[in-house]
Order: sequence, then C-alpha cells, then structure tokens
Amino acid sequence: MGRTSAKAETGRKALLRQSVLDAAAKLFAERGFAGTSFQDIADALNVGRTALYYYFKSKEEVLASLVEEVTVVSDRQSAMLSARTDDDPVEVLRSMVSGHVELLLSHALQFRVVDRTEVELPPDLRAVHERSKRAVLDHFTTQIARGIQQGVFRPVDARVAAFALIGMCSWTTWWFHEGGRKTAREVAGILADLAVHGLLRSDDQRKTSGDPGDLFRQLHENLDCLEILYKRREAGA
Amino acid sequence: MGRTSAKAETGRKALLRQSVLDAAAKLFAERGFAGTSFQDIADALNVGRTALYYYFKSKEEVLASLVEEVTVVSDRQSAMLSARTDDDPVEVLRSMVSGHVELLLSHALQFRVVDRTEVELPPDLRAVHERSKRAVLDHFTTQIARGIQQGVFRPVDARVAAFALIGMCSWTTWWFHEGGRKTAREVAGILADLAVHGLLRSDDQRKTSGDPGDLFRQLHENLDCLEILYKRREAGA
Repeated sequence: MGRTSAKAETGRKALLRQSVLDAAAKLFAERGFAGTSFQDIADALNVGRTALYYYFKSKEEVLASLVEEVTVVSDRQSAMLSARTDDDPVEVLRSMVSGHVELLLSHALQFRVVDRTEVELPPDLRAVHERSKRAVLDHFTTQIARGIQQGVFRPVDARVAAFALIGMCSWTTWWFHEGGRKTAREVAGILADLAVHGLLRSDDQRKTSGDPGDLFRQLHENLDCLEILYKRREAGA
Repeated sequence: MGRTSAKAETGRKALLRQSVLDAAAKLFAERGFAGTSFQDIADALNVGRTALYYYFKSKEEVLASLVEEVTVVSDRQSAMLSARTDDDPVEVLRSMVSGHVELLLSHALQFRVVDRTEVELPPDLRAVHERSKRAVLDHFTTQIARGIQQGVFRPVDARVAAFALIGMCSWTTWWFHEGGRKTAREVAGILADLAVHGLLRSDDQRKTSGDPGDLFRQLHENLDCLEILYKRREAGA
C-alpha cells in the first residue's frame, strides 16, 4: 500500500470510528446504556457485529471512548490553558470558560450521555471520569485563587466559585440548540464574560477605594499639575 | 375525633407521605424509575402494597408528587419573588438566585431524580415539568431584562444570562454535600453574589462613562466650586 493510500485508510478508519461513537451516543441517550446492546449499535449502523468488532470489542469499550472524548479532553484543555501562569488571570480564566463551553457544545450529546451514564460506568472507567472532572475543577479553582491573590478578583471562596462556573458551562449541553438565536461561540463568549465580571473587583476598588479621602487626593494631584503649569508660565514670562 | 387529634392525624399522614417520597426518590436515584417497582417502594418502607396504596396509587403518582415538590414549587417561588417589581432588580435577582439554590439543596436528591428521569416521565407529567422549568427561566429572564432597562445591569443577552444562572444553581445538587465546608445557605449567598456581580455595571460606568471627557467635566465641576468659593471671599474682603 502506498503512503498516500495508507494515510487515506487511517483517515477513513478514524471517520468510521467516529460514526460508531456518534451512533452509540445517540442510542445510549435514547435507551440508556443498560438498554442498549452491542447488536443495537451494529443495527443502527447497518453493519454486522463482526464489522463493528474491528473498531470496538464491546459496548463498554465504546463508552470508554466517549468518556475519553469528553471528560479527559476537557481536563487536558483546561490544564493547558491554566498553565499559562505568566498571563493575566482574568484573560486565562476567560479563555478557560469559553474554551470549555465550546468543547462541551461541539460534543453536546456525548457530554449528556456521559453525564447520564455516570452511575453505570464500570469502576475503572468511572475512576478515570471522576479524576478528570476533579482535575478540571482544580484548574478552575487554581486560576480563580491566582486572580484573588493578585488582587484582580474579589476575595470569594475559590472552590465554590469554580463549581459555579463549571455548572454554568455544563448546563449549556442541556439547553443549547444548534441553529438557535446564538452560535456556540457567542454563548461561550457571553458565559466567559459573566464569569469574569462575577469575580472582578470593580474598577473603583482597584484604582481607589472611592472614599472622600481618595477623591481629594485625586483632585490635589490634578491641582498640582495645574500649579506646575502656572508656575512654569510665570517663570517664562 | 377531636380537633387536636384530627390535626395530629393530618400531620402524621403528611409525615408518612413524605417518607414514601423520600424512599422512592432514593430508589429511583439508585435503580432508575424503570428499574423500580411499586413493590420495591413498599419493601423499602417495610409495609405492604395496600398500606402504600393509601398514599399513592402507582409509582407514576409518586413521581408526579416528586415533580410537584421540586419544579412546580421552584416556579411558584421565583414567580413570587419576581413579582416584586417595585424593588431594586439587583436585590430581587439576588433573592431569586439564593432562594432557588436553598430550595434545590433542601431537596437535592429529589431534584437529581427528576432531572435524571425527565425522559421517562409520562407525557402529561413531562408537560407540567417542562412548563414549570420554562416559567422559572422566564422569571429570571424578565428580572435581568428589567435590570438592564434600569441601567443597573450591563446590556447582556438576558435569556442566555438566565440560562447561565439557572445552570449555576442546578449544578449545586450534583456537587453539594451536607456537612461540608460550606452550608447550603452560604453556598446560596456566594452564588447569588457571583450572579449579581456578573451582571452589574461597574460603579464607574454607572456614575460616569469613565472616558476623558467625563473626567474633565468632573474636574471642571470641582474647579467651579473652588472659583465660587474664591469669588465669595474676594467680595467679602
């Protein structure tokens, strides 16, 4: 087999594998994991069990791939973004929220299935799933805590805030409809904006405390500038 | 039967009815609605089917009561709070979010069951559930829109923001643990605070637009005051 056709073969295999995952996710969502057999997946794809066997050995293996595709990838993505510790925590958190929503909405059905099937996952797969979920929560918590430490975020409970943001993101897979009023990217932007604003200290708090003393100081500074300008002109005259 | 004992009887009946609901919710959560029989509920309570029959005619009727207890009550509560249109939309929204979280967390298991069993609900019950959920969303949307109109909230998409807040609230039933670091009331307060801050215009934006023109105007006003004071002293001298 030539190099090009080998590549095409790999691409074709990946594509077919993805159709198996999509069909299985649809069945699991409709009938539940327990209510779906390996044969049902083969039937939905109009292929024999043997053909399906080429990609997955069991429906448990299909479910494992679905978990990998959603929770594990979420963890990897938020870990990567969260590692940018040189950047402004505000912008890092913004991209973490919008990135998470975009990932969720590009695999909404899969996320819903994994979410619903959680209790039915085989123990080792459930452990992977729980570990990844916990890691995503940790990345969000760390980033919020960093913002608080730098004085750009209000001193909230970082853990509870992280849960709140993740809840806001996860819920989108249950209400978002492709082709609705807003695109997935727009929804991601709106949620990231709400998340960041919810945590930011107000400009007033960051620049001045907003009390009369600070306002007077500001006025004095402006007057000092005026005085300097005036004296310069006097001296020049 | 005397008045007092009739009252006690009603109280006892309500209490027993609640134990049926609690036991059923636990079973539905563990085995799913389809995987639970009317007999299972009776067994869990250590009573016969006939005794159970006194409170509920079928497991569908039990599920109907669970839906009533969570979604319908959520609707009623947020409708009541949202009707306070004379009050500051910021404070109304704050109490809507914290009230919603407190209600959810006082019935966390029931909420999770109804959430999970959504697709299995009989059509008429599902319609009630969907209508109530939609109504809660509408109350949140209306209140956010009112705040935008009054210039206290930033001009965001009120519908998407309402979904975001409800998602933040609903998710608590999946992560909150009684007896953990924070009480339900504390979590409710933190989430309400995040929600409100996420929507509020900053103080700067509310008072002035924060652009150089506004800052100059502010400085001019201060200088006008100084000038008036100066002239008064000159005239008096």
